[in-house]
Formats: sequence, C-alpha cells, structure tokens
Amino acid sequence: MSESLKIAVAGLGTVGAETVRLIHEHGALIAARCGRPIAVAGVSARDRSKARPVEVSNLPWFDDAVAMAADPEIDVVIELIGGAEGVAKAVIEAAIGARHHVITANKALLAHHGTGLARAAEAAGVTLAYEAAVAGGIPIIKVLREGLAANRIERIYGVLNGTCNYILTTMRETGRDFDAVLAEAQRLGYAEADPGFDIDGVDTAHKLAILTALAFGCEVNFDGVHVEGIREISSLDIAYAEELGYRIKLLGIAGRGEGGVEQRVHPCMVAKDSPIAAVEGVFNGVVAEGDFVGTIMAEGQGAGAGPTASAVVADLIDIARGTSLPTFAVPAVDLERVPSLPIERHVGCQYIRLMVVDRPGVIADIAAALRDEAISVEALLQRGRAPDEAVPVIITTHETEDAAMVRALARMDALDAVLEPPRRIRIEAL
Amino acid sequence: MSESLKIAVAGLGTVGAETVRLIHEHGALIAARCGRPIAVAGVSARDRSKARPVEVSNLPWFDDAVAMAADPEIDVVIELIGGAEGVAKAVIEAAIGARHHVITANKALLAHHGTGLARAAEAAGVTLAYEAAVAGGIPIIKVLREGLAANRIERIYGVLNGTCNYILTTMRETGRDFDAVLAEAQRLGYAEADPGFDIDGVDTAHKLAILTALAFGCEVNFDGVHVEGIREISSLDIAYAEELGYRIKLLGIAGRGEGGVEQRVHPCMVAKDSPIAAVEGVFNGVVAEGDFVGTIMAEGQGAGAGPTASAVVADLIDIARGTSLPTFAVPAVDLERVPSLPIERHVGCQYIRLMVVDRPGVIADIAAALRDEAISVEALLQRGRAPDEAVPVIITTHETEDAAMVRALARMDALDAVLEPPRRIRIEAL
Repeated sequence: MSESLKIAVAGLGTVGAETVRLIHEHGALIAARCGRPIAVAGVSARDRSKARPVEVSNLPWFDDAVAMAADPEIDVVIELIGGAEGVAKAVIEAAIGARHHVITANKALLAHHGTGLARAAEAAGVTLAYEAAVAGGIPIIKVLREGLAANRIERIYGVLNGTCNYILTTMRETGRDFDAVLAEAQRLGYAEADPGFDIDGVDTAHKLAILTALAFGCEVNFDGVHVEGIREISSLDIAYAEELGYRIKLLGIAGRGEGGVEQRVHPCMVAKDSPIAAVEGVFNGVVAEGDFVGTIMAEGQGAGAGPTASAVVADLIDIARGTSLPTFAVPAVDLERVPSLPIERHVGCQYIRLMVVDRPGVIADIAAALRDEAISVEALLQRGRAPDEAVPVIITTHETEDAAMVRALARMDALDAVLEPPRRIRIEAL
Repeated sequence: MSESLKIAVAGLGTVGAETVRLIHEHGALIAARCGRPIAVAGVSARDRSKARPVEVSNLPWFDDAVAMAADPEIDVVIELIGGAEGVAKAVIEAAIGARHHVITANKALLAHHGTGLARAAEAAGVTLAYEAAVAGGIPIIKVLREGLAANRIERIYGVLNGTCNYILTTMRETGRDFDAVLAEAQRLGYAEADPGFDIDGVDTAHKLAILTALAFGCEVNFDGVHVEGIREISSLDIAYAEELGYRIKLLGIAGRGEGGVEQRVHPCMVAKDSPIAAVEGVFNGVVAEGDFVGTIMAEGQGAGAGPTASAVVADLIDIARGTSLPTFAVPAVDLERVPSLPIERHVGCQYIRLMVVDRPGVIADIAAALRDEAISVEALLQRGRAPDEAVPVIITTHETEDAAMVRALARMDALDAVLEPPRRIRIEAL
C-alpha cells in the first residue's frame, strides 16, 4: 500500500469534528477504497480547549489555520470554517499557493469567489473539491460533473435548504403560521437564531449559483440570482395550494434561456404528484434534466454532521485515488461569462391571493387590471360571502411575463377594495 | 489538446446506435469535458446493411467483433451485444487480453462473471466500467462507488425493472388484471415478446447482484439471490394494498445480516408515502442507506436508448479523463466471499390473502395454523358476507420468519374451506 495521504482540517465545529470522527471510525474501509491510508496531520480551530464529540488532543494542533494550510507536510487541506471572506478564504488561498489540494463545504465562498478559486487551483495543478457545499450528503456535484457528463443540461432545480423545507412542510401538516413554526424550528435546532440566511433564500442562492456554473459551464454568478424567501408565505396560501393540487416549495431553479441563463430562488407551487413535491421535511432534492438522460432526481439529507462529513470524505477518497477533474467540469479558464436573464422576463403561470371587500364591482376592477396587462386568467375563486367584509380572492393565471404581473399587482394593490398587498406565488411546471 | 481516444462499439442495436449518435452530436462538449476528442475507430454488428437511426457507413467496420476488440488501434471497447455468454463475453475477454478498457451495459454477464472479469481487468491494468448495466441513466454505480465511498452501506434496494414497474403502476391506475396490462405493455414496446426475463424478476436479480458486490465489497453472487416475479399479483391484491396504505413494487433488496448478506427480489408492499412508492411507471429508483449519509435515493429512467447511452458515455468520459477505479470499489482480489442468507431466515411482516368458504369455524382453523407457527396477526379482515360462498380474507402479520410463514401457508392451503392457493406478499419497512 502506498504512503499515507496527509490531511489538515481547518475548523472543528459540528462538521469538522464529524469528519475527523468518520476518518478514524472508517480508517480501514477508506484505506481499502483509496489504496492508501489517510493521516490527520493537522487540525486547527479557534478554541483548542473546547469540548468536542471527538478526541483531537492527540492530533497535531495549529493555532494558525493559514499557516497550517501552507505547511509543506500537508497534502490536502479541508476547510470547514465557513464564511465568504476572512479566514476561510485565506486558508484556501494559502493551500492553493502551497500546491495542496483543497476540500471545502463553503457555499458562500464558492458562490462569491468560485471562478477565481477554481482558476487558481487549476493553475496550481491541484483539486478544489466541494461536494459538501451543495445538498449535504447527496453527491449531486459528482452526479452532474461525471454521472451526467455526456448530456447537455437544460435545467436544474431543487429543494436546497432543509430549514425552509422543514418550515413549509410543518406549516402544511399542522396548519400553523410561519412565525410559530420558525420559532419551533429554532428550538429544535433546525433554524439558526438569526434565520435570515436560510429563510430569505440566500443559502439556496449560494448553492444554485454553484450548480449553475457546473451544469452550464459558465462562471459562478451569484449576483445574477433573483432571490426571494419564504417569510411572506401564509398558512392560507398553503391551504389554497393544497386545494388547487399544489405544494409550496422554496426552489432554486436554473435554466438555459434565449441569450443567457436564468437563475431564480423563490417560493413555488409545484404539482402535488411531482417528484420534487415529495421531498419533505429537512430533506433536500435536486432534479437535473439532460438531453439524453431525461430527468434524474437525487434526494437525501441536505445538512447535518454525518451527511456533510460523508460528502467531505468522498472528495477526500477521490483525491487519494488520484482522480483529478476540472472544478466545474470544464477547465475554469474556459468557463463562459453568460448573461443573466432578468426575472422580469421570466414567463410562467402564477397564483395570486387578494384580501378584498366583498362588494359589487371589485372583481371587475381586478379583472381589468389583469386584462390591461394581457394576463389570461385560468381560474378565479372568491371564497365565502360576507357583504362589505374582507374575503380572499384566489386567481391562477396562464403563462405571463413576470414584469406584466408586477405591474398588474401594483394596480390591484392601489384599489380601495384591496385591503392587503396582494400575495403572489409562481406556479412551476416541473 | 491531447491525442484522441479511439473507441470501438460492438453491437449496434438501439443502445449501440444511440451511443454512436450521442458521441457525434456532443463531440465538442465531450472533448471539452475529457480534455481530448473521442474517435469511433471501429463498429461491429451482425448485419452491416441493416437500417439504423445513425449513419455508420463512414465508420471502420469489423465483421468480427472479437477481432475488433483485440485490435491494437483501439483504446476502449464498448460492448453492447448483451447476453451472459457467447460473443459478448468473448469480446470483453479479448479486449482485456489486449489491455483495452471495457465499457459494458451487460448486467447478465456481470451477474454471472463479474468477479472474474473484474479480476482479469484489474490484473491487466484496465478499467471495466458498467454504469449502464444498472438502472439505465441513473448514475447509481458512481454514486455508490464514489459518492458514498465514505460510508458503510447497511442496505440497498430499488425498483430496478421498468417493465414490471410499468405493469404494476398501470394495474393500480386502471384496476385491470396482470395479463391485460402485460399485453398492452408488449404492444407499447415496454415489454418483450418473451417477457419472462423481466416479469419473473431475473433482470432485477442481475442488477441486484451487481449492486450487492459494490455496496458490500463481496464477490458477485447471482446464485445467492432469492427471486420471485410478479405474475401472481392480482388486481385484488393491488386494491387491498391501496386500502391498507401500501403500494406493491417489485424490489431488489440487499442488506447485511448476521453472518452474511441477504439478497432478494420479490413483490413488496411498501408504505404509500415512502419515497420508493413514488417511483412510478417505467422509472427506476434506488435507495442506499449509509451509516454517515443516512438515506439517499436516486430516480430516473432505467432503460431506453438515450438514458443508457448517457451512462455508457459517462463511463467513456471517466476513462478519457484518466479516472481509474477498482471495478467494485475495492480491488477485485480483495472482494470477500460472503455467505448468502437464505430467504427462509428472512424476518418481516407479511400480507396474506385467502379465498375461503364463508362458514363458521374457517377463521378459527386459519388462526390455528398461524398460532401453531407462532405468527402474530396484526389484522384480519373478512370482506363481504356470503354464507357458503367464496369470500376473501386478508391477514397482515407482525414480524415473522419466512420459513414459519411457508409452513403456515401450506397448512392453510390444505384446509377444505380454502379454495385457492393462499397469496402472500411481504411487507417491507422502508
């Protein structure tokens, strides 16, 4: 058996500690699959004395993660610190500078600096691996980059954030409102104390930007992602979705369009019997559509220590086996700069909910706002009769351009009889 | 860009022709992903003049596929002839003998000769790739061998035959009987004129034997697979399954047990809301359970020209990129010979349907047969009342050993009041 592969782990939080534990627990299995043993030759974290679920006192400790990353004894640096800037970025840059392979779970960093880091790694002749950065334990990077490599990918979409999916699933199952379910998710540890990153769609957008580069061979373009979160989803909308045959999911969707690539993250209504609708709770699911393979879906745990460590060590085994691939499937210098298609030009069906005063003429005013934007109504339902009181009106439309819908929503919002800002959820044909 | 990789395609049926078409249509994309172009340096089939969906007259033709496989000009041989013996086997052996890489979609061949061929390929220093042999376009071989390589796999199961799944799905959706739906599937081209290979579970067993070797690091052991097909499934059972909250699927299931590995293929009742139950029609789905990653499911088209060619060319791109991995994840010489656990020792819940004469004492006799085998009844339902006529009796049991159930079924079958052989379907907790 060949010489051992020497790795350094920067960051010993939940995922870092689990990665060390996995490498120890499955040392023999990993060595059999790699053809060589793995040796943890360095660990670094902010606090050396902190209690951790794995013993690290017998491992070489580095106070300075950046110095560790550049240490000539190291072959592979595993960055599990997180954050788009700061130490994490310095660690990866130092590792590449010292010609060490890099494994990272850092989606924010890749979303913001992925193209540049990929070019630096490939210029240095080292691997930049990031299976753990998207959809946790699901090997979606490998599936896209290798498993579907023979295909032109037309579209990719997924449930990429377990926190949002847990909240939406629980809202549907219990009928409770967003705030109550979010508070519960925080108590259970499924949502952060500061949940904005997840529930405002930013985390999903980071992951989508990475998948887009990989699927379409273009530069990572986080700024090109249209992002909306789930704060505005009410239990009323969830109930109406159910009645109309839909489930509400926060999806990241990227597709080829005329003259560019569309990247968007927002709540979607999807048909109840579509495979993506069956991805529930904290699970993630990703669907890729290729011109030869058709539709492929992968589902699994998108977060958590075990699944994320599984993805980190899969990358490590690839590196130990000598597998070397371009970061985003084609050489990073060849990644194209592709225009982002603005959300305003997106065309799709829509769901609208208005709270209106129940009196004659209101529906006519609403219909006029839609007609003037050439929006074709598929269905209009007024629920309950309560003269001169507030009742919900639900409208679903045929395919319409997003910009036209925004204008129509503004006109409806300006009507006296419309009591709350109209709610709109895009309906996706998946 | 490096020199082109020279490939030879043996067999130009649906999949062979589509593979050639894919390589031509996506030549630039494949070259970008491989770092080198692919050149089709040889094709061979039984009938040179046959009309095919792709032009092959401009490609070097070989009358003798075995001679082509050994031709020193060739780098990679793609075997798409099929069959566990004969020409397909000779082609692969000739290719390995000449130290050419091999790609095959031939599950029967690998199920019967996988261990030996893997050892021969690895001794010769060449790759034996077979992504297309299991679950068509779903890259499940790659997911298991690389994506989940950090895990100890505990269990793997799946819907691995689209023909059976189409028949079972259509039976449920239409209420029609097996024979009528099979005839329709044959008309639509979803089932062969001689359907035994699919509907008797043999094809599923071939695929399961391959997955088992890969997941558990053991020799391929097709003879160790317990196989039952779907001919006996009646529309009555499908309706009762629905009522009890189950769907009926033909699954291949492999798991670690005490002292060995269990491999079985048979109809199963699975909970309606389980992910595998949502794999419908001609689709395939595979679930792997790993100790760190948890449960991962992949779903897609398990057959058809496009998806299968996608898998073949994914293997080709891996080879062109220089990726080289042991056939079954660990070196073939290290694959263990693991005992097969007999189906008689399998423990699980069961569904039984009896057609009985509706008269006093019958249920007591049935209950006695179960009691004497220490089988605990979960529910017993007698449907309809028709004194002295035939009525169905449905029984579900708690966990019971398969052998005990077989004995109890024999005793029930011997009762005068039991008019047809009892039907039994295992209930899987997935």
